[in-house]
Amino acid sequence: MAKADRPSKGSDKGSDKSKPILQTFKGGKGSVRSPSFRGAAASREPGMTMKNAPDDAPAIVLDLGPAKLSPAMTAYFQKCQDKLGFIPNVLVAYAFDTVKLEAFAAMYNDLMLGASGLSKLEREMIAVAVSSHNRCYYCLTAHGAAVRQYSGEPLLGEQIVMNYRAARLSKRQRAMLDFAVKLTAQPWAVEEDDRERLRRAGFSARDIWDVSAIVGFFNMSNRVASATDMRPNTQYHGQAR
Amino acid sequence: MAKADRPSKGSDKGSDKSKPILQTFKGGKGSVRSPSFRGAAASREPGMTMKNAPDDAPAIVLDLGPAKLSPAMTAYFQKCQDKLGFIPNVLVAYAFDTVKLEAFAAMYNDLMLGASGLSKLEREMIAVAVSSHNRCYYCLTAHGAAVRQYSGEPLLGEQIVMNYRAARLSKRQRAMLDFAVKLTAQPWAVEEDDRERLRRAGFSARDIWDVSAIVGFFNMSNRVASATDMRPNTQYHGQAR
Amino acid sequence: MAKADRPSKGSDKGSDKSKPILQTFKGGKGSVRSPSFRGAAASREPGMTMKNAPDDAPAIVLDLGPAKLSPAMTAYFQKCQDKLGFIPNVLVAYAFDTVKLEAFAAMYNDLMLGASGLSKLEREMIAVAVSSHNRCYYCLTAHGAAVRQYSGEPLLGEQIVMNYRAARLSKRQRAMLDFAVKLTAQPWAVEEDDRERLRRAGFSARDIWDVSAIVGFFNMSNRVASATDMRPNTQYHGQAR
Amino acid sequence: MAKADRPSKGSDKGSDKSKPILQTFKGGKGSVRSPSFRGAAASREPGMTMKNAPDDAPAIVLDLGPAKLSPAMTAYFQKCQDKLGFIPNVLVAYAFDTVKLEAFAAMYNDLMLGASGLSKLEREMIAVAVSSHNRCYYCLTAHGAAVRQYSGEPLLGEQIVMNYRAARLSKRQRAMLDFAVKLTAQPWAVEEDDRERLRRAGFSARDIWDVSAIVGFFNMSNRVASATDMRPNTQYHGQAR
Amino acid sequence: MAKADRPSKGSDKGSDKSKPILQTFKGGKGSVRSPSFRGAAASREPGMTMKNAPDDAPAIVLDLGPAKLSPAMTAYFQKCQDKLGFIPNVLVAYAFDTVKLEAFAAMYNDLMLGASGLSKLEREMIAVAVSSHNRCYYCLTAHGAAVRQYSGEPLLGEQIVMNYRAARLSKRQRAMLDFAVKLTAQPWAVEEDDRERLRRAGFSARDIWDVSAIVGFFNMSNRVASATDMRPNTQYHGQAR
Amino acid sequence: MAKADRPSKGSDKGSDKSKPILQTFKGGKGSVRSPSFRGAAASREPGMTMKNAPDDAPAIVLDLGPAKLSPAMTAYFQKCQDKLGFIPNVLVAYAFDTVKLEAFAAMYNDLMLGASGLSKLEREMIAVAVSSHNRCYYCLTAHGAAVRQYSGEPLLGEQIVMNYRAARLSKRQRAMLDFAVKLTAQPWAVEEDDRERLRRAGFSARDIWDVSAIVGFFNMSNRVASATDMRPNTQYHGQAR
Repeated sequence: MAKADRPSKGSDKGSDKSKPILQTFKGGKGSVRSPSFRGAAASREPGMTMKNAPDDAPAIVLDLGPAKLSPAMTAYFQKCQDKLGFIPNVLVAYAFDTVKLEAFAAMYNDLMLGASGLSKLEREMIAVAVSSHNRCYYCLTAHGAAVRQYSGEPLLGEQIVMNYRAARLSKRQRAMLDFAVKLTAQPWAVEEDDRERLRRAGFSARDIWDVSAIVGFFNMSNRVASATDMRPNTQYHGQAR
Repeated sequence: MAKADRPSKGSDKGSDKSKPILQTFKGGKGSVRSPSFRGAAASREPGMTMKNAPDDAPAIVLDLGPAKLSPAMTAYFQKCQDKLGFIPNVLVAYAFDTVKLEAFAAMYNDLMLGASGLSKLEREMIAVAVSSHNRCYYCLTAHGAAVRQYSGEPLLGEQIVMNYRAARLSKRQRAMLDFAVKLTAQPWAVEEDDRERLRRAGFSARDIWDVSAIVGFFNMSNRVASATDMRPNTQYHGQAR
Repeated sequence: MAKADRPSKGSDKGSDKSKPILQTFKGGKGSVRSPSFRGAAASREPGMTMKNAPDDAPAIVLDLGPAKLSPAMTAYFQKCQDKLGFIPNVLVAYAFDTVKLEAFAAMYNDLMLGASGLSKLEREMIAVAVSSHNRCYYCLTAHGAAVRQYSGEPLLGEQIVMNYRAARLSKRQRAMLDFAVKLTAQPWAVEEDDRERLRRAGFSARDIWDVSAIVGFFNMSNRVASATDMRPNTQYHGQAR
Repeated sequence: MAKADRPSKGSDKGSDKSKPILQTFKGGKGSVRSPSFRGAAASREPGMTMKNAPDDAPAIVLDLGPAKLSPAMTAYFQKCQDKLGFIPNVLVAYAFDTVKLEAFAAMYNDLMLGASGLSKLEREMIAVAVSSHNRCYYCLTAHGAAVRQYSGEPLLGEQIVMNYRAARLSKRQRAMLDFAVKLTAQPWAVEEDDRERLRRAGFSARDIWDVSAIVGFFNMSNRVASATDMRPNTQYHGQAR
Repeated sequence: MAKADRPSKGSDKGSDKSKPILQTFKGGKGSVRSPSFRGAAASREPGMTMKNAPDDAPAIVLDLGPAKLSPAMTAYFQKCQDKLGFIPNVLVAYAFDTVKLEAFAAMYNDLMLGASGLSKLEREMIAVAVSSHNRCYYCLTAHGAAVRQYSGEPLLGEQIVMNYRAARLSKRQRAMLDFAVKLTAQPWAVEEDDRERLRRAGFSARDIWDVSAIVGFFNMSNRVASATDMRPNTQYHGQAR
Repeated sequence: MAKADRPSKGSDKGSDKSKPILQTFKGGKGSVRSPSFRGAAASREPGMTMKNAPDDAPAIVLDLGPAKLSPAMTAYFQKCQDKLGFIPNVLVAYAFDTVKLEAFAAMYNDLMLGASGLSKLEREMIAVAVSSHNRCYYCLTAHGAAVRQYSGEPLLGEQIVMNYRAARLSKRQRAMLDFAVKLTAQPWAVEEDDRERLRRAGFSARDIWDVSAIVGFFNMSNRVASATDMRPNTQYHGQAR
């Protein structure tokens, strides 16, 4: 139960001495949720262009206050910082509550990085196709970058963001994205015929589960992101162009 | 057995030594995934009424093979069995993989049973309103029963299943379900005005997060259920009528 | 009482000499449209839960005043009272005008109870599938109960209320409901191919007429019910569970 | 003649003794359902232009065989013939079964010609606006002609057929058609606010019933017409231009 | 005159020396944009019937002021006047700017009157089917008349205005309009299969271009017309009935 | 009439001596429509990834054959080549017919580059918002690049491609894009209230025309692009990141 572990009681012990963990990322004072960003959020008026405010701060429009991260999550954030150079804002958003953050991270990591008959690229393609249907700015940006990176084809990322039908996909990938978009748009109409189409394209029962679970996951994330005006870290935009 | 999915032979090999935990529930031999149910699944043809097969078996149409549950999940299943008299089929469905099951259970339990400014009834109302938009048989059945139970008003459960606008809701609850259904139907169009409507109805920033996260969660679950033809345990139908 | 509608004073004048027939049903004083229910209607505010008011009174939100029933309709209502123990609220709603009530009852009884190649259960299945698409609280409740009763399968009623695709239907019934839902959702797109699909499933020309007429009828009733906030008699909810 | 429907042999047997009443209209031999028209129907292939066949025969694509009309319906048809010069094809369509014809005619005549706070023109405007949403060829043709006739404004009929928002309507009529089209398109979303908009435009409770009942009626008729490929009598097209 | 738009004073200045060309059409004084029509526009209130104002004046609700036509456009307008007896209001609308008028006329004339594998009737059928989907009052009126004229079948024009599926089309024409309406309603979903259906119905690559370009053109015109409340010249309504 | 000029007869004169003009662009032999690209098109099978073929060739899937460009268009193409380094594929697509190319270029250049109260950036923002609704790969790519260039804000281009509601727009720009997207999605519902919203945001009558005409133009272009599988030049993807 490594990933879904609840924070042990022990994690509360050090709470008096330690300042909010998030402030230790992105360079101390200039932290993700520094007062200056919060001020930017406070002054954001609908219909006003704010060229001086960074597009990706605050992470979400709801001010939920930072929580103290568990050791596991502190390590996870450090790993993000080391590998990516930043903490993805979806994690920053969930970080107001360690239990929620850990549950989200556990599910995300299993689905997108765990063992599966789907390649990591295919999983990211699903993420983008679903997010395109739902027009989710956060997920299209973050996972569009991932498709560009995994595939080494910048255009593929662009195409799935815009209209996956414009991408020149293999039959397998096309069947996968057709299923993903139908399950997103009309879940009530997905039936045996749709599963059969995946099987004919070479997907096993376990693969069908994985496609479905990833489609489900991004239908969740897209809605959390839209509901909270989640902003993608600006770093994503330039990645792997 | 063209359409039904089989566990590979390899997965059957070890079954004598590590007896699948699920078979210990629902009375040993007559377990949730007993051969007779599996046969029922194999012979299920589209367009054929099967009066002899129980409606709720197999839990899903994909045959993923049972996994050995972790001790934590074994305890969780036992708790379900003791309290409900059965294991909810959504858990049975995820039980083919302990990591996935634990991630799902952790998120579900936090959202629906953890601390929140939303009552448990309100959270179930959101679950049903979202599932009604998505016409999800599994979730409408299981969470419709929960609304009946928590509210003590059988009609309230029925109304939210059918059309939440027909229920005589408080202004707070109506605002909550209006937000939930818009976020389900048109996530791309949810903006500050929508959040402001929740705030005016008394919802805090944290409450708005919780509403959004629950809406997201059921948009995920509805799709996993539809994609796998997940069947609600028959016991739900008669609960709290 | 700004929003609630009152019978004009003139319409009350004759009430002493021609006692509204409806008051003779459901036990005299405690009649369907007794003053207490009317008061409940008058005080109904949007967004307020009214736990003390019965859910099914008044029958509709428009106050049209009771009419004197014709002898034929008096007998019809008596028959309902004797067989069902109550007068269905759709009839109570139409009873403000005997001509309208008779026309409605004549069409309803012919379609749902008259000679047809469709069984009575099949006709009720159509009623529920159409009403599910239109999310009509009144018709889903009343005709969902009828499906449970005629079929002896409580789950079948639930499934068609929620999503008819989740029910395990015969090919004939599935073709019938596919046609019904398409004709409901996209009447402009129904063409020869759709009729041909019914013929291949064994439906005669007359059967196709009957399916179509029932689909039409409930597309009418659903709209009258939604437009008037028609409330199903509470007795339906518990029937044939 | 695979796809076209034939009367059973049995139904032809008695035709000599009980001459179908319909044949007495439209000039005896050249009756509405004469063999030549039936042949036209039988040979109608999808995708073939048939310039020689009249557009309005047969009345519907289902061959249900003519019934013997009741005396009341015989008189009704004679009245149509005398006043209009033809029997509207919707009546010809229902004439295969006198009970159905009488129920339809009773409801139609009450709604469209009976006492109401709505003018006959307003009722026809509703009919056309509903039928425009549903793109019903039969009803748009027949009731578009009625709007032209009642209003004396040929353009008004055209505009409501095409897009009622293009017509220069009074506030009352605009509110009425906005309600009619919403109740047609999204019956599940019609609520107190919608009724209140009608009240503010001067509609009484009884008027709201009448608007709703007419909207309902044409949502029924549109579907029966689409499902049966009902053809409007060609005479309508040129009326009141 | 709050809502109506006025030409700036500056634009009136030169009017004596360069008499707006438009005033020379439709009989000098009674010109298309005469003061009386402008007054009618100014006094047009939403929700008011104006029986005294002509339906087709002003051409659009935006007051953009007349421009001096180029010699080529003067000749073009004269040709319209001579052939049709009036200047189509779409040209009157564009006439506020000669460059825009010429670009529009060049594209229109090439598409609808230039060399093509599609007959002129077929091009007009596309115009009407597209405009029916978009419910464009201007284009349905003007091009519905053209279908009546080119085909000599008044009913064909009516049917495509109402629902092209009700028209008895050749396979070629049906394939053409199916493509046109799909490209109008769901351009993102048009793919090789759709083109292939046109090819199988006998359309060449160039024909497919022409169908697509005409569909595109009317999706443009429909929007310009709707956005400006463009009114069809009243003469169209009675043409070729 | 500089831009919309028809090719004079003289332009045909030299056709024997001059090779197709398009081949002179993009470096002689390696021309836009060279045999190798045409071969790629011919061998393109649905569902096959073609990593070796450039994404942007051929310009469209229809093989219409190159035409000889008029002198004006030759100059125009040369100007594109000089300024952009390539000929936009939409022009390559239209180049099979000089009349069509000139009409398209005249309209495009007037709308997007001519005098207007809208800035060039605003016009490109409209182009992208419309193309996002229609999910047009070609136009999103080409005009997304233009928004990035004109604004100097790469994120703004991304945001309007994905969901314009996520961009932090001025009130004026938000009103403009709300109008543009409504006119794209529901042209039949655009009315005086919508125009009034633009006026309140500071748009003049002429500005409203320009917004509408640009919305219309891209609703045309999106459909021509989708219908022909038009491919954006690969150079666009990296511009102004």
